[in-house]
Amino acid sequence: MAKLSHLDDQGRARMVDVSDKDVTNRIAVARGTIHMRPETLELILEGKVEKGDVFSVARVAGIMAAKKTCELIPMCHPLNITSVEIDLTPQEKPARVEIEATVRVDGKTGVEMEAMTAVSVAGLTVYDMCKAVDREMTIGEIRLVKKSGGKSGSFIRKD
Amino acid sequence: MAKLSHLDDQGRARMVDVSDKDVTNRIAVARGTIHMRPETLELILEGKVEKGDVFSVARVAGIMAAKKTCELIPMCHPLNITSVEIDLTPQEKPARVEIEATVRVDGKTGVEMEAMTAVSVAGLTVYDMCKAVDREMTIGEIRLVKKSGGKSGSFIRKD
Amino acid sequence: MAKLSHLDDQGRARMVDVSDKDVTNRIAVARGTIHMRPETLELILEGKVEKGDVFSVARVAGIMAAKKTCELIPMCHPLNITSVEIDLTPQEKPARVEIEATVRVDGKTGVEMEAMTAVSVAGLTVYDMCKAVDREMTIGEIRLVKKSGGKSGSFIRKD
Amino acid sequence: MAKLSHLDDQGRARMVDVSDKDVTNRIAVARGTIHMRPETLELILEGKVEKGDVFSVARVAGIMAAKKTCELIPMCHPLNITSVEIDLTPQEKPARVEIEATVRVDGKTGVEMEAMTAVSVAGLTVYDMCKAVDREMTIGEIRLVKKSGGKSGSFIRKD
Amino acid sequence: MAKLSHLDDQGRARMVDVSDKDVTNRIAVARGTIHMRPETLELILEGKVEKGDVFSVARVAGIMAAKKTCELIPMCHPLNITSVEIDLTPQEKPARVEIEATVRVDGKTGVEMEAMTAVSVAGLTVYDMCKAVDREMTIGEIRLVKKSGGKSGSFIRKD
Amino acid sequence: MAKLSHLDDQGRARMVDVSDKDVTNRIAVARGTIHMRPETLELILEGKVEKGDVFSVARVAGIMAAKKTCELIPMCHPLNITSVEIDLTPQEKPARVEIEATVRVDGKTGVEMEAMTAVSVAGLTVYDMCKAVDREMTIGEIRLVKKSGGKSGSFIRKD
Repeated sequence: MAKLSHLDDQGRARMVDVSDKDVTNRIAVARGTIHMRPETLELILEGKVEKGDVFSVARVAGIMAAKKTCELIPMCHPLNITSVEIDLTPQEKPARVEIEATVRVDGKTGVEMEAMTAVSVAGLTVYDMCKAVDREMTIGEIRLVKKSGGKSGSFIRKD
Repeated sequence: MAKLSHLDDQGRARMVDVSDKDVTNRIAVARGTIHMRPETLELILEGKVEKGDVFSVARVAGIMAAKKTCELIPMCHPLNITSVEIDLTPQEKPARVEIEATVRVDGKTGVEMEAMTAVSVAGLTVYDMCKAVDREMTIGEIRLVKKSGGKSGSFIRKD
Repeated sequence: MAKLSHLDDQGRARMVDVSDKDVTNRIAVARGTIHMRPETLELILEGKVEKGDVFSVARVAGIMAAKKTCELIPMCHPLNITSVEIDLTPQEKPARVEIEATVRVDGKTGVEMEAMTAVSVAGLTVYDMCKAVDREMTIGEIRLVKKSGGKSGSFIRKD
Repeated sequence: MAKLSHLDDQGRARMVDVSDKDVTNRIAVARGTIHMRPETLELILEGKVEKGDVFSVARVAGIMAAKKTCELIPMCHPLNITSVEIDLTPQEKPARVEIEATVRVDGKTGVEMEAMTAVSVAGLTVYDMCKAVDREMTIGEIRLVKKSGGKSGSFIRKD
Repeated sequence: MAKLSHLDDQGRARMVDVSDKDVTNRIAVARGTIHMRPETLELILEGKVEKGDVFSVARVAGIMAAKKTCELIPMCHPLNITSVEIDLTPQEKPARVEIEATVRVDGKTGVEMEAMTAVSVAGLTVYDMCKAVDREMTIGEIRLVKKSGGKSGSFIRKD
Repeated sequence: MAKLSHLDDQGRARMVDVSDKDVTNRIAVARGTIHMRPETLELILEGKVEKGDVFSVARVAGIMAAKKTCELIPMCHPLNITSVEIDLTPQEKPARVEIEATVRVDGKTGVEMEAMTAVSVAGLTVYDMCKAVDREMTIGEIRLVKKSGGKSGSFIRKD
């Protein structure tokens, strides 16, 4: 039967040993969405500068969060990530911002958690910057959409 | 018209000045859900120890993340939070874990972001600990459900 | 004779005891400059988006650094700062960017170091983002220009 | 024309992808100066112990800051630096302390920002420890003086 | 019967709610010892400069660790500590260094963990700086010796 | 004569240069003990859940602390550790909990400090979670018991 690799034989948490894994180039892509009122999206979009800034701050927050992943997720390994890119795309009907993070590393383990964390924190930052006008925004659909590299091979989520 | 308080007159990001706000007792409650395959939930639930541990690690991660909020969300104020509680509740049909975080503070500004961040990181930790058996888990519905304290008064989300 | 308050009677470093100081509203303003080639400044300024972004990233970095001050400067006290604002102003002849940070707190000790740190890290971020085209940029004139609040009273630097 | 590598085609900030760069031994040397009143320098220098300590605390702060660089500078890559050395040299006429940091790494990207950050934080620490007697100290001339390793080759600043 | 306050009714960890506690001036003193070979102690003591530095680095590390306590100990509350002092005293027969940390705060909860953490990290730093010549040093007797302030009143350990 | 490698020729602290050392697989094992009243141990042990949780939180804290070692110990190198395991074993007569941490890395320098730090922070966490019922617990005998890998070869402590 399948096993949760983060738990040892007695069910205790541990940081999985990756000492013997190969260093390979690994990529992970995660996505998420923040839903909001149309007026909130409009407010973000209308002024060129404002739009630039909300998205720009969220992007910086997501990139910095990717680097903090192993401080946040207890069993994550520290990794020297080599690239992070974050895209925020406004969408209407329903009003929302789509967030995508792509993280790369040459390492012994993958960067799925780094990509998921970057998306989450970018979404939280959009929430923080707009919550004065819309407390009911919802962050959702945070998911891994793609990964490659490593022994377990490639994965592409069928959405 | 409504204004995004994190942007000044020229649309530049800033940490909003809360110097003149009163110190009051403030509470915020946020919730979120991590959806998974029934077999994944079963795997978490079946061994008493394992269940204890996945949820226990996620709870610790969420509590520690609440304390790191102002390092993650660029415009958040540092606050000496006085309490954090995290509940993880397994649910079936569809298989999922419901996460709720309650954060308190005596301060000049609220702890909505602390509660939202605690829920997000608890969810990411469940994902991390189970991703070896289920890569398609999805974290969603991260939202503020309640807040009280402060000049803007109480808020209860109508779900 | 004057005494270095961070050193005790035997010259050992310590975090100065501020337990008995009053909580007052305190403000500090610091400034600095990053000098660069005219072409580098032009590159930052020419594309609206690019300018927005270099300055926006530097502003976010400065704000986040203000919150990290007590982790960086060994004898600094942790403080719940209530506001940070960062201005970056491009200037010509000689080509440079002027950086100003204003930090506020209600606390038992001042925020001079928070303002100085915010300016320094904003400057380092401009350097980082432009260093591929201009390695010889110089960050300088980092100084306290104003402070108020606290027993030692107000200070205005005569530049 | 030259391009700011930290901005993508649409001018959005990103962490530059260094996945395909070679791991080479890289060195960077940065310098800066903190100017002060002659009496302040004298106060630092006169007691052997005191001098030891101000410089010792600043040296520790600079070394620790070099390790925190990628948490401070948003687009910096995390790196396992292999060495940091910090020199603080008192100079008279005008009264000042010269600061030099040398950082090494075996990595895919250079350590210029680590050296610049180490110098800045060492200077800020000297400021913090002496500000009770001299608020008008100025930190300046923070600059890269040398780098080697990597595809772009060696650089020596002509001061 | 006595109860572990960090566990709720179902035995789950939580950060104890201190919202309703009074802000009082609180002090905690902790001590510990690092045992070593006489030659190691001699090596630390013989050169004035060297002694200054090993102890100085350990003192800085302990002070900075006190400020990081709530990041290290999961259920600790963030606190704006107002003072930290660390003493390192060399002792012979048996060869050892005694470490004492005194931490103060005006807050809703005590600083016992801050004092204990400061002692531990100062001891670990002495170990790190001397381990090349003495791998068998042992850090021990880390204990709270005194606390005052707060509802539970004063405590003095009978050693 | 032996030399403290963290001090240069003039006795100033520095981060030892490991650029030219080989990347090898390195392991370090450290141990420590927290002594307590028999009733405290009983309280931890009696409820299955409670026991699980105190030990589980301490284990998570130790693992996360191992990853923070280079932020705490000034002269430590940042390392991408590949595994951390923490065991907590209750023992009677005298009542105590034995803590053991095993840390692995493929790197240019060893992980002794990571293992020592993990043990210390796990012990501090047990103290924190039980201090409401037993303030006189003592953490002790923190020591390196084994290391392998690297030029200096293997070490096994003769206890």
